[in-house]
Amino acid sequence: MSEHNRHGGHGAGHDHHAAHEGHHDGLGGEHDGPHGYASDKEAYLRRMSRIEGQVRGIAKMIDKDAYCIDVLTQVAAVTKALQAVSLALVEDHLGHCVVDAARMSDDDATAKVREATEAIGRLVRM
Amino acid sequence: MSEHNRHGGHGAGHDHHAAHEGHHDGLGGEHDGPHGYASDKEAYLRRMSRIEGQVRGIAKMIDKDAYCIDVLTQVAAVTKALQAVSLALVEDHLGHCVVDAARMSDDDATAKVREATEAIGRLVRM
Amino acid sequence: MSEHNRHGGHGAGHDHHAAHEGHHDGLGGEHDGPHGYASDKEAYLRRMSRIEGQVRGIAKMIDKDAYCIDVLTQVAAVTKALQAVSLALVEDHLGHCVVDAARMSDDDATAKVREATEAIGRLVRM
Amino acid sequence: MSEHNRHGGHGAGHDHHAAHEGHHDGLGGEHDGPHGYASDKEAYLRRMSRIEGQVRGIAKMIDKDAYCIDVLTQVAAVTKALQAVSLALVEDHLGHCVVDAARMSDDDATAKVREATEAIGRLVRM
Repeated sequence: MSEHNRHGGHGAGHDHHAAHEGHHDGLGGEHDGPHGYASDKEAYLRRMSRIEGQVRGIAKMIDKDAYCIDVLTQVAAVTKALQAVSLALVEDHLGHCVVDAARMSDDDATAKVREATEAIGRLVRM
Repeated sequence: MSEHNRHGGHGAGHDHHAAHEGHHDGLGGEHDGPHGYASDKEAYLRRMSRIEGQVRGIAKMIDKDAYCIDVLTQVAAVTKALQAVSLALVEDHLGHCVVDAARMSDDDATAKVREATEAIGRLVRM
Repeated sequence: MSEHNRHGGHGAGHDHHAAHEGHHDGLGGEHDGPHGYASDKEAYLRRMSRIEGQVRGIAKMIDKDAYCIDVLTQVAAVTKALQAVSLALVEDHLGHCVVDAARMSDDDATAKVREATEAIGRLVRM
Repeated sequence: MSEHNRHGGHGAGHDHHAAHEGHHDGLGGEHDGPHGYASDKEAYLRRMSRIEGQVRGIAKMIDKDAYCIDVLTQVAAVTKALQAVSLALVEDHLGHCVVDAARMSDDDATAKVREATEAIGRLVRM
């Protein structure tokens, strides 16, 4: 499936985007990326970099023979941080890609909702 | 908050409903309920009644001193069944209430997406 | 695996088995306590009965066309209650069956720990 | 709580270790680390380093504007990998620290089981 098709006929969506420019300004500048998280990209990258540091910290704890329970607590903290990122991605995805699809057609909406639900299912039933 | 307001200005949404009648036909007959799950209500009720039976079954296992691990396995099965119901509710909610809100206005869309994300958060971080 | 084997690889536990034969036959005669939760049985039964009531409450909400998000919130609450029961069962199981096995032999301990971990895995990765 | 106390009276536990040397032989050679995961330390470090690479990969995906759903899928994969590490840590912890405590005294056993259950609770209810 092409990148464009996945975006719900983004190619034909120019008018739509023009109509919405105003909102995205409010959310932090123009939205020239096709994805839900585009406007917050820097924030997501900072979160991932913090998580990377936490993962390295856990490796260091293991290397220094930290107590199992303390390692477990840190692993749970990283998992929680990843789930918070997931939820933020879900919100951005629903608010952009799913909302856009809803405005395209019923079929686009149904397909995007199905896809989003499957992704949410992977978060819930890990 | 009134039932109507929660539905994204449902009260003022008569035109909206008229405009969308066609879609609901396409999605499986008339949509006379206001909620995502309305068309599958009977199916949801059957699932809940099966889950109720499973819960009673666990109580019976405990009463008969079944092995802890077997009880745990059954509790995990019921939790899984409840999460499957949750996911189905999420899909129906996104496909009806959120899609409808997206077609109302940006503000409706944002509010519904926020609300849905919070509900998904409660599922993920149980 | 037979019920007896599952109860702790009392490989050397013949006496024990003889003593308990009656229970397993009837699955509910006198139970002098092979299971972790035995001492709190009444409390567990009350919790399960409360959960059963919550499940029935959700069915009623669906029947009355309650708002999807409110139904989802209740389903999340029941799932949480079930997970709390699971955790209590895990604690009782570890504190009785696993501790007992640890005092029997290394092999008993390893087998029980493996079994408990698999059960915990089913809770974590629902 | 001091590191030593947390290890189930490790400080005063010399006798304990001497007394239990036999078990550890049976569990796979000398046990010179105080922790459950000590024997698998290298394996855990490799897993954490793989997870670190996955986290960096997600950052790269975000930087290259990958599709939200694909990012979500990868985040779910890392979360799953972390939960697998958690479960392995739980098993090692139960099999070493909790089993050792069970052989010390009822109080040690109860304290360790409580602590382990709380850690498991953090995994389950993330």
